[in-house]
Amino acid sequence: MIRIKVKQLYDIMVILLKGAGLTEEHCRQVADNLIQADLRGVNTHGVMRLHLYLNRLHTGAVKARPDIKVLKERKATALIDGDNGLGQISGLRAMELAIEKAAACGIGTVSVVNGHHFGAGAYYAWLAGQKDMIGIAVTNTPPLMAPWGGRKAMVGNNPFAVYVPAGEEYPILLDMALSQVAQGKVSLALTKGEKIPKDWALDREGVPTDDPAEAMKGVLLSAGGYKGYGQAVVIDMLAGLLGGAGAGVNVFSMMGYPDKPQNSGQLYMAIDISAYRDPAEFKKDVDEYIRSIKASPKAKGAENIFLPGEQSWRRMEQNKEQGILLPAGLFDDLIRAGDNFNVDIRPLIPTEENNCQ
Amino acid sequence: MIRIKVKQLYDIMVILLKGAGLTEEHCRQVADNLIQADLRGVNTHGVMRLHLYLNRLHTGAVKARPDIKVLKERKATALIDGDNGLGQISGLRAMELAIEKAAACGIGTVSVVNGHHFGAGAYYAWLAGQKDMIGIAVTNTPPLMAPWGGRKAMVGNNPFAVYVPAGEEYPILLDMALSQVAQGKVSLALTKGEKIPKDWALDREGVPTDDPAEAMKGVLLSAGGYKGYGQAVVIDMLAGLLGGAGAGVNVFSMMGYPDKPQNSGQLYMAIDISAYRDPAEFKKDVDEYIRSIKASPKAKGAENIFLPGEQSWRRMEQNKEQGILLPAGLFDDLIRAGDNFNVDIRPLIPTEENNCQ
Repeated sequence: MIRIKVKQLYDIMVILLKGAGLTEEHCRQVADNLIQADLRGVNTHGVMRLHLYLNRLHTGAVKARPDIKVLKERKATALIDGDNGLGQISGLRAMELAIEKAAACGIGTVSVVNGHHFGAGAYYAWLAGQKDMIGIAVTNTPPLMAPWGGRKAMVGNNPFAVYVPAGEEYPILLDMALSQVAQGKVSLALTKGEKIPKDWALDREGVPTDDPAEAMKGVLLSAGGYKGYGQAVVIDMLAGLLGGAGAGVNVFSMMGYPDKPQNSGQLYMAIDISAYRDPAEFKKDVDEYIRSIKASPKAKGAENIFLPGEQSWRRMEQNKEQGILLPAGLFDDLIRAGDNFNVDIRPLIPTEENNCQ
Repeated sequence: MIRIKVKQLYDIMVILLKGAGLTEEHCRQVADNLIQADLRGVNTHGVMRLHLYLNRLHTGAVKARPDIKVLKERKATALIDGDNGLGQISGLRAMELAIEKAAACGIGTVSVVNGHHFGAGAYYAWLAGQKDMIGIAVTNTPPLMAPWGGRKAMVGNNPFAVYVPAGEEYPILLDMALSQVAQGKVSLALTKGEKIPKDWALDREGVPTDDPAEAMKGVLLSAGGYKGYGQAVVIDMLAGLLGGAGAGVNVFSMMGYPDKPQNSGQLYMAIDISAYRDPAEFKKDVDEYIRSIKASPKAKGAENIFLPGEQSWRRMEQNKEQGILLPAGLFDDLIRAGDNFNVDIRPLIPTEENNCQ
């Protein structure tokens, strides 16, 4: 593992993206998004994704200089063409427009077509929160889950994020996907030689399995049984078909189709709290709600009751101070990706010995 | 069981509500809402709730003649005072206003304070769907679920409904609560002497239990583990605190507090599909999506793959033809509730022998 200072990691990301041909401004936008995920401890959606993005920029599946424009607009809504650039770029533009519309109309909702993996949805929802708004960001993904009664991946695990500002307490931030667990948890169980709960995945026949090897050949199950499947379908509608993007089997995975646009869609929503009530009073009520839950009796064996996002805000404080701990292999991936654009980041990477702790 | 014609059941509801003092128009609004749930086979949210409403109208916890008014308004949003009338009345008004705003701005979002149990959310979402809009209805409920790590009911199972219009296929209609299962399923297992899965409920100590008797003394678990809890918290924000209604322990159950306003809140949202793209093309894409899922390989033992809501639309066709089958005890409850207002519905109820099949 390598521990790296936040600023240093940020600079590496900017240099690589610049090498891939992005404008200085877009480099910073993408790096801002990824670094926030790493700071919150959500490493799966941080710099770990960057080498994939760079590879897709190299193949041309992702455009380095997308022409992002508003295709259709009403007072409180807009449709934006992401032009197959990185999802962070269209996402920021879309959420900023949604915030602007919310300030004028009470709510703003902006949809993106020709979208792409956008990092963690939390980032966009958080953006709205900085303006005393409730922020919502929704994306669809390539098919990962079986429909209820099926055994083939037909529906994405379609994540969504919601940010609700609080007063003195940590803001509420829910950022979740709709599979019972991520595929990564199944492969981790396989590595450890452990069994998995039977509501995680189906084998190839469509039978619930506790064997992670069978699960890896099968398909993920949705969270809460048919409930997660139903929600994933709804998100395919809201994030995908509403704007004219793909949905289900018409969305393509970053790794499975390295030279093909992803065809995913996103929906960004900002709700201006002041359209309903005084934001200061609202935040006081949110604080009170949070405190009442945290003070409620704990289950046997539980040390704490957390609100959504609370643990990630705590990790952020820690990571800002201590730097971010990342697997060394990640930097090898980035070095190789940089080579495609003649960018050498080797001198910028701390050694495992010489880390910044 | 008694099978009753739809028109006859509708008339009984209207007569009872009229007896309780509602205006003719409001009686029809409430009856329209409840009958749709019974038609779709969602009897738990149909006429089965009426005696509770009537009892609360009798105690004064629910006002028969609420003064429903818009408290705050922006171009695309509004806050409505439900004035502790039945939730169906404020709900209809709110969704109609949301639809109007969506037609003008692309999206409309209306929040209700001093709300009340509103029947099935599906009804309001469906209303928007009739105008080629995507409809969303969200409510919070009295606390029913433990927070993750807790053992006391602190959060409602906060249901939400989403309606997405289709073309030739059945429209997509997701209407779900955020507990893993409804309490009713636990008590059914108790009656049958069956064990329950360990992700349904905790016992009094906060330990997952497979004993329905212990579960009945404990608390429900959220769908998909902490994911359902997180979503329920978010809905407490959107449906409750955003508009200034109660949330969590500040929302009161209809039965537990028969003479107290419920203090729940609702949020209604309509998204005009034409703000994004041609609704006819959208619906064609929805049809194609539905067909691809239904045609995908089935899991072992599964006879069919359903989309959200599909089964309820099929039941509706059947029930319209055959009438609605209801437990006889339900009519006894209604007779007693009617007695409070000197309304005698006995002559209107078919006998079990003399049913309309």
